[in-house]
Amino acid sequence: MGYRAPVADFRFLFDNVVGFDAVAATDRFAEATPDTVDAILTEAGRMCEEVLAPLQREGDLHPATLENGVVRTSPGFDRGYRAIAEGGWVSISADPDHGGMGLPLTLTTAVNEMLGSACLALQLNPLMTQGQIEALEHHASDEIRALYLPKLVSGEWCGTMNLTEPQAGSDVGALRSKAEPNGDGSYAITGQKIYISWGDNDFAANVCHLVLARLPDAPPGTKGISLFLVPKFLPDETGEPGQRNDLKAVSLEHKTGLHGSPTCVMQYDGATGWLIGPEQGGMAAMFTMMNNARLGVGVQGISVAEAATQKALAYALERRQGRAPVENGTGTIFDHADVRRMLMVMKAETAAARAIALANAVAIDMGNATGEADWKARAALLTPITKAYGTDTGILVAETGVQVHGGMGYIEETGAAQYARDVRVTAIYEGTNGIQAMDLVGRKMADGGEAAHRLLDEVEAAAEAARGTLPELAQAVWDAAETLRETTEALAALPPADRFGVAVPFLRAFARVLGAHYLLKGAVAEGGTGDRTALAAFHIRRLLPDHLSLCAQARQGNDGLYDMTPEALAV
Amino acid sequence: MGYRAPVADFRFLFDNVVGFDAVAATDRFAEATPDTVDAILTEAGRMCEEVLAPLQREGDLHPATLENGVVRTSPGFDRGYRAIAEGGWVSISADPDHGGMGLPLTLTTAVNEMLGSACLALQLNPLMTQGQIEALEHHASDEIRALYLPKLVSGEWCGTMNLTEPQAGSDVGALRSKAEPNGDGSYAITGQKIYISWGDNDFAANVCHLVLARLPDAPPGTKGISLFLVPKFLPDETGEPGQRNDLKAVSLEHKTGLHGSPTCVMQYDGATGWLIGPEQGGMAAMFTMMNNARLGVGVQGISVAEAATQKALAYALERRQGRAPVENGTGTIFDHADVRRMLMVMKAETAAARAIALANAVAIDMGNATGEADWKARAALLTPITKAYGTDTGILVAETGVQVHGGMGYIEETGAAQYARDVRVTAIYEGTNGIQAMDLVGRKMADGGEAAHRLLDEVEAAAEAARGTLPELAQAVWDAAETLRETTEALAALPPADRFGVAVPFLRAFARVLGAHYLLKGAVAEGGTGDRTALAAFHIRRLLPDHLSLCAQARQGNDGLYDMTPEALAV
Repeated sequence: MGYRAPVADFRFLFDNVVGFDAVAATDRFAEATPDTVDAILTEAGRMCEEVLAPLQREGDLHPATLENGVVRTSPGFDRGYRAIAEGGWVSISADPDHGGMGLPLTLTTAVNEMLGSACLALQLNPLMTQGQIEALEHHASDEIRALYLPKLVSGEWCGTMNLTEPQAGSDVGALRSKAEPNGDGSYAITGQKIYISWGDNDFAANVCHLVLARLPDAPPGTKGISLFLVPKFLPDETGEPGQRNDLKAVSLEHKTGLHGSPTCVMQYDGATGWLIGPEQGGMAAMFTMMNNARLGVGVQGISVAEAATQKALAYALERRQGRAPVENGTGTIFDHADVRRMLMVMKAETAAARAIALANAVAIDMGNATGEADWKARAALLTPITKAYGTDTGILVAETGVQVHGGMGYIEETGAAQYARDVRVTAIYEGTNGIQAMDLVGRKMADGGEAAHRLLDEVEAAAEAARGTLPELAQAVWDAAETLRETTEALAALPPADRFGVAVPFLRAFARVLGAHYLLKGAVAEGGTGDRTALAAFHIRRLLPDHLSLCAQARQGNDGLYDMTPEALAV
Repeated sequence: MGYRAPVADFRFLFDNVVGFDAVAATDRFAEATPDTVDAILTEAGRMCEEVLAPLQREGDLHPATLENGVVRTSPGFDRGYRAIAEGGWVSISADPDHGGMGLPLTLTTAVNEMLGSACLALQLNPLMTQGQIEALEHHASDEIRALYLPKLVSGEWCGTMNLTEPQAGSDVGALRSKAEPNGDGSYAITGQKIYISWGDNDFAANVCHLVLARLPDAPPGTKGISLFLVPKFLPDETGEPGQRNDLKAVSLEHKTGLHGSPTCVMQYDGATGWLIGPEQGGMAAMFTMMNNARLGVGVQGISVAEAATQKALAYALERRQGRAPVENGTGTIFDHADVRRMLMVMKAETAAARAIALANAVAIDMGNATGEADWKARAALLTPITKAYGTDTGILVAETGVQVHGGMGYIEETGAAQYARDVRVTAIYEGTNGIQAMDLVGRKMADGGEAAHRLLDEVEAAAEAARGTLPELAQAVWDAAETLRETTEALAALPPADRFGVAVPFLRAFARVLGAHYLLKGAVAEGGTGDRTALAAFHIRRLLPDHLSLCAQARQGNDGLYDMTPEALAV
């Protein structure tokens, strides 16, 4: 039993839960007709099932290696990459002027989820390229765009992000890489970057690095950072890969998982690059890329959650153990109450995270299509929630999948443990989940919590509308939204630094309430009876109560947090 | 910065929190004077720091291998094992008649925690032997005891448990291994056992297997199971290892972690064994071993939690990143609120789990010393809680440690990820944590919840006594105990099968309340001000509120749990 793409679920969510109809009704996305959406989801889903899913174990068993300065990728990854590129799945949302389909990011988000379920390590490659395309579309000169975008959009070339240095991780402003003008409009880039996902590969004709560096005399901190495009091969006069640039992967990290994705230490020795965006404007340009990447990484968590749930369900339906605890059951451990509870948790958490991610993508699409500030604020608010909750969900669900497998879950051959090892990094890269939570209670609440309250208005209105169909569940969601609203107000009244100690529980509470909201919408859409209603009831009765303890924690602020000394925290 | 044994914390808990004074006051454990306790903890702690801790990475980097049917252990493990055996740390609680120290299991529990923090994979070996000693002391004939116990107690030989077969995991009653009488008082054992921890090694002179098998014409299920002692080498007339028995390790599992511990598939081909306990009495004898092993495995979780906390703290105090968020801080990420929150969570969860495990051991010791049914019921109640909450804590804390390390946590060289991989199995073996929870709400509440209520009486009495010192915290613990009491009553009113779907959240709620109780006792003991009070306040204000949502979940019973079909749970 391999991975099966949840195409019908995406269709249901588009139509009934996340408001995709509004996106399709805009001029900008008029092409996103039901037929087009159907065709893309079905076609991409089939490719994921047939071509990518068989590569998942290969990446783990045969990690990428570095040979003579060149990365050799896992068996079959070249074939998988070509299938992604040829399907056009790198660039569903890219500008048609450069060969993209110009379709909503919501559609890209659904397809990215399927790609990641099938083979997370390989999916990370086009995810990076998508971010680079977005950054170049917004910030690069016409010349750069004309030269690079068609190659990136077609998947002929691919892209990476180079931010981190040994002393500059979460604090990107501490980076030291230098860029010196060559006098011909280009720059010489020098420095070392670490944790560069897909820093090199052997299946794309060129690898284009977006590198953060400092110009001479740049001010310290993030204000002095500029962004440069630094290709592995310098384009020749025909635009094809020419001379080798002065950069290379010098080592690969030995990671807990995601072995199919080469994580490189990159060395730049006066490599030729071109400025993207204004001087000292690197952070703004990088944020274009990072916001999409954060949504994309959140979706990676959901990818793994979906795949791990399918695997655990298949195992539970095969494994016979113990006397049948229910009449007319399957005769497998699927009938056992605690196993069923675990599977329901997996299903409910995955469904909640997926709906939040798609609603996030809809907000980005609406912001792009209408230019309205409210949509942009909604997208900005949801992005850290999608990233942190999506990846936390991936980890929780994959670990629960291991538990469903019992002893077999700890044995690598089943692949259950690989999901847990692979997904673990998603809570760390693209900004740790702690950084996401600080973004939520800091920058994203700099409006005093206005965007949060507008979203809670919507949650409460939907709960009101659900009262006729599912009164008990509607009341529970409404109450939870009120509790979260009060907590949001309490938090907004604190100085930002005093919110940081409870940022993580606050983000989790927000995700809990949003998840319940979207599941309730789905239940109402099916008329208040059926499988979506059963799942919503499970979530609202058993998982949503979490928000009480999370909100209680959030209201503590930083009180007492610093009372223990390092000496006391040690033995 | 290597592992440092928390000797002072054990001393504090013994003296102020878990009631070790009552154990030391019994005739049976009169030898457990403060000086003896001190000497043992200090001596064992030093050995763990100096000899075992350096082996932790070796086990991961150089897993045990199987060569020509013989297990070759990781580099240095032979030396580590000898240090454990020569220190007498296998048999602190074994009967002095066979060379043991006859000291309380509470002391063994503390020492086992330190051994596991230093090198979990190796610690599992003497943990299995301890269980075997216990089983033989209670159930073996005088001859067997005289022959085997001195060798096991000295560590010259070691022991294993053989329960699981491919079709018989959680459902041990489904096992098929056979035992046929040889006519000379011995039996011929035939069958295959899987997941046998330390099924073989190259540092002990003999490996003694306790094997569950069926006699001819045995009834089906657990009632037809008998227990046999089957040594790798048959003792000769002098009691020394003689002829090789017809058994062998046929393969090793490729696990996610705990690579230093060889997990064997064992093949028995008419191997010679001796009956332990009565015919068809295997389960009762095995439960002697399993109860201790369950406490021991819970403690393994705490071992890893302690070691992972120490490592994360050391990293946080070294790593400089970002502007200092507090005045007069360390200038490291230790000052950042979310990092501090994570470290406090790690410390509080570890402290709570440790206190529960030691209180569990005290109850066992008191049961053994006094024979009182109340103490035995207390021990029986706490064992599944210690096992499940201890190991869940190990996993949570190790994963949080990875997160504190950021990107470095995902790189294997730091060792943070190894803790997470190693400890993961502890939630699975010795009865999955789901099985533990079912044991708690099933067998351990067959008394209608009486043992639970007696423990809650104690929690409430301690909270009453704490009101003078820490009124707010005392009230919170008292309220939580009441909520848990009501939930216990509600659960006890359901038929056992209807409790199983909420067994896990109920167990977690119980652990939350107990953890708060013991931390409050510690805070009161230090006079209501200081580091233990800060930690108790953190736990009670930020973690204890969990019990509300866990109890809300527990009160759901199995309602709605079976409403989704397999088809609906799939895509």
